[in-house]
Amino acid sequence: MLLSRPDVPRPSVAARDKARRLLEASLGPSKVLVERDACERFVRDESEAEGVIPDAVVLASSTDDIQKALGAAREAEVPITPRAGGTGRTGGAVPVGGGIVLAISGTNQLKDVDLREGIAVVEPGLILKSLHDAVEREGWFYPPDPNSLSSCCLGGNVAENAGGPRAFKYGVTRDYVLGMTALLIGGQRLQVGRRTLKGVTGYDVTALLVGSEGTLAVFGDITLKLIRKPESVTTLLALFPDVRASTRCVAEMTSAGVTARCIEFFDGSTLNAMRAAGNPIDARAGSLLLIEVDGSARDCEVAAERVGMACEAAQALEVLVAQDAGQRERLWAARREMSHAVRKLTRRKLSEDVVVPRQCIATLLERVAASCEKHRVRSLTYGHAGDGNLHVNFLWDTDDEMPGVDLAIGDLFREVVALGGTLSGEHGIGVLKAPYLPLEQSPELIALQKDLKRLFDPSGLLNPGKIFPGGAHQAC
Amino acid sequence: MLLSRPDVPRPSVAARDKARRLLEASLGPSKVLVERDACERFVRDESEAEGVIPDAVVLASSTDDIQKALGAAREAEVPITPRAGGTGRTGGAVPVGGGIVLAISGTNQLKDVDLREGIAVVEPGLILKSLHDAVEREGWFYPPDPNSLSSCCLGGNVAENAGGPRAFKYGVTRDYVLGMTALLIGGQRLQVGRRTLKGVTGYDVTALLVGSEGTLAVFGDITLKLIRKPESVTTLLALFPDVRASTRCVAEMTSAGVTARCIEFFDGSTLNAMRAAGNPIDARAGSLLLIEVDGSARDCEVAAERVGMACEAAQALEVLVAQDAGQRERLWAARREMSHAVRKLTRRKLSEDVVVPRQCIATLLERVAASCEKHRVRSLTYGHAGDGNLHVNFLWDTDDEMPGVDLAIGDLFREVVALGGTLSGEHGIGVLKAPYLPLEQSPELIALQKDLKRLFDPSGLLNPGKIFPGGAHQAC
Repeated sequence: MLLSRPDVPRPSVAARDKARRLLEASLGPSKVLVERDACERFVRDESEAEGVIPDAVVLASSTDDIQKALGAAREAEVPITPRAGGTGRTGGAVPVGGGIVLAISGTNQLKDVDLREGIAVVEPGLILKSLHDAVEREGWFYPPDPNSLSSCCLGGNVAENAGGPRAFKYGVTRDYVLGMTALLIGGQRLQVGRRTLKGVTGYDVTALLVGSEGTLAVFGDITLKLIRKPESVTTLLALFPDVRASTRCVAEMTSAGVTARCIEFFDGSTLNAMRAAGNPIDARAGSLLLIEVDGSARDCEVAAERVGMACEAAQALEVLVAQDAGQRERLWAARREMSHAVRKLTRRKLSEDVVVPRQCIATLLERVAASCEKHRVRSLTYGHAGDGNLHVNFLWDTDDEMPGVDLAIGDLFREVVALGGTLSGEHGIGVLKAPYLPLEQSPELIALQKDLKRLFDPSGLLNPGKIFPGGAHQAC
Repeated sequence: MLLSRPDVPRPSVAARDKARRLLEASLGPSKVLVERDACERFVRDESEAEGVIPDAVVLASSTDDIQKALGAAREAEVPITPRAGGTGRTGGAVPVGGGIVLAISGTNQLKDVDLREGIAVVEPGLILKSLHDAVEREGWFYPPDPNSLSSCCLGGNVAENAGGPRAFKYGVTRDYVLGMTALLIGGQRLQVGRRTLKGVTGYDVTALLVGSEGTLAVFGDITLKLIRKPESVTTLLALFPDVRASTRCVAEMTSAGVTARCIEFFDGSTLNAMRAAGNPIDARAGSLLLIEVDGSARDCEVAAERVGMACEAAQALEVLVAQDAGQRERLWAARREMSHAVRKLTRRKLSEDVVVPRQCIATLLERVAASCEKHRVRSLTYGHAGDGNLHVNFLWDTDDEMPGVDLAIGDLFREVVALGGTLSGEHGIGVLKAPYLPLEQSPELIALQKDLKRLFDPSGLLNPGKIFPGGAHQAC
């Protein structure tokens, strides 16, 4: 099941030729790549999902370009796969049936920042960090902060409903999307949602599109809500003997009424990976929390004190408080580099992205450890402990390890669902988790979602092979 | 157009008889009202919308009862209108085609409060204030606070995506619904969403159902997110010479970086209504703001000081700070009684619920005043200034005033849309605003929403006549 490519048929030669002709005629040759070598660069994202080299790649630089590409795909009846930053972890941007890749990273304008209303309007290809920088300079804040913030695009963030460490306090992308231009297969343009902070007119089509993984619509301009930037932030790092102790600290913080803005969690194997990457971490530590509180300077003082007490109650080995921005940045740099540090340990890895009730984190990790031992698989886990969102990484070097990894992943998802959790907190289902969807959702709910998909995309041309096991247009 | 009842056909006598028989057989006679006098009590909500006396009323006390009622409606092919607290302002719970009213206020258990996870599970008939009281005792907080909080039910709140004053800082009902049991026409039960704080598995069907006004599904158990209760609250009341000054104060607060938890706004006519109801308000005042800030005690001090400076910059006549809980409660009591105070001035009223960018509030009200003068209509406006959500009340006594009111409402909605606003911030579209939907939304977006409606309810039996002009099952 692992890394299997969904059975999405390739378009016929005639259809591919027609698509290329239509694209070149409507967009001009400079925006359409058709050479195999050029197209090959668009076959992967940052997951292990495997694609088919696309027949054409559209380099869109405007909403009009996106419309034209969606029109050509419909007319030629070839699949079209939208792609923003290409930083996805479940294969959402991977063209599993070839066809057209619609690359929107050239639509990258910050079109409007209205600070009287606390609203920003962005093109879908804008890099998240550009938005952060632009609004933070003015004392405003756009909280979502996936690890890939320097390279991911807001259109992809909206498609995947991206989260990040700060989601624990501030919510995920969905909580900040007020409205958008939605571009449907065929090129139809729909204005959905609103520009005001509140609004309940009609069904919340905007909310349905957020997190739909590029399978219902492609986005043009997106209207986002901003909030005020917290005045101060305090960052703490706490070392614990083991996962039971660090997760007890999370519970102690909850009891003490601390709403940290993030609580980043690392298990013992992750600490070993960090040590291997050159970070001198106390050898006694079997788990670590990186905790941030924010608010007024006085709020931070009070909260940091309570965090310190929670750490003590949970028998922390050591608690460090970053004394300045430089120290703070160094603590975070280690977190951001984690994924790359892990990559150095292994030829291949899969980072799962499950969520369990936060009181079940230690239990889940014990069960994962038992499963990995049984199947002889290496794993390590880090993630966002506040909302129970864990990135369980499975590591392997050679193909003969893959059956074990496959079994361990199945065990993980079953345990997650048994503990009342969900398969994905912020990476989406994409290609890689589609086979597991029925573990969590009933056949009736999956059937309803396939009906929704067909309503937006009757021919199944928009990002086929994603979310649904066996494809959206086949029976369960 | 005003108060016109949508053209929803009544079921045939045979269908009504069949529905009653099926309901009595599956639910037992004690849960099914069929006497005309008993049924008549369910023909209205707190709006001016007119209904048809239902043929039967189901007094559901469990999810099973809801399922059985939805099953009977489908089998007998009669319309069914869900009803929670009956406090809606746009006729969402009004049976416009007769048939069955499904009253769910008997399903009123607070089933679970898990403070380790910050989650509550409620039955849909639970009164909102019961949830507030239960969680606030434990130091937790469920922010949505519509004015009807002592009588409205959470199921209705979710159906309408209720807001309230605190929505400015804390968001609306949608921001707190994690998952639910959805009961479809026919009685099919679907578990949607999740119990964890984060989750992006599949389409966000939960978000689509929130705010769907009882037209897509009826809710069983609802899982809600809780947050920590702010430690302190400070309430201020500021008087201004006119609306330009009070709305300038709102802008000054934004510039000063104050995120008040609410900014309640009253125009001059509203102050006159308050004076007529016995509130001794300074005669110089032509507008009033009731402002609340929350956080730590120190945060409140700092924020209150900034609010005071913003008031001064906007040339407030007077600023009062509530010195204790009693004073605070008295300030709010006047706000909560507003709707009733207005009712004393007039035989009939319609409270519209529009949203405009907050910088456009004064402009909108000037245009409303001009329109009302032209059409000889009385109006007054209060609302939530932070998010630009205004309750524009039109008042009249005799039927011959209605054509003028009708014209003034049309003018209002056109101006709102022209200013970049939306028809409804928290009351929904229901019956009363359905004719105006095309002012804001394109034919294509309305057609898409009707397709969504048909997907959930192919025969159009669930709460017909709501949201869509001409009904969901007719062409635009």
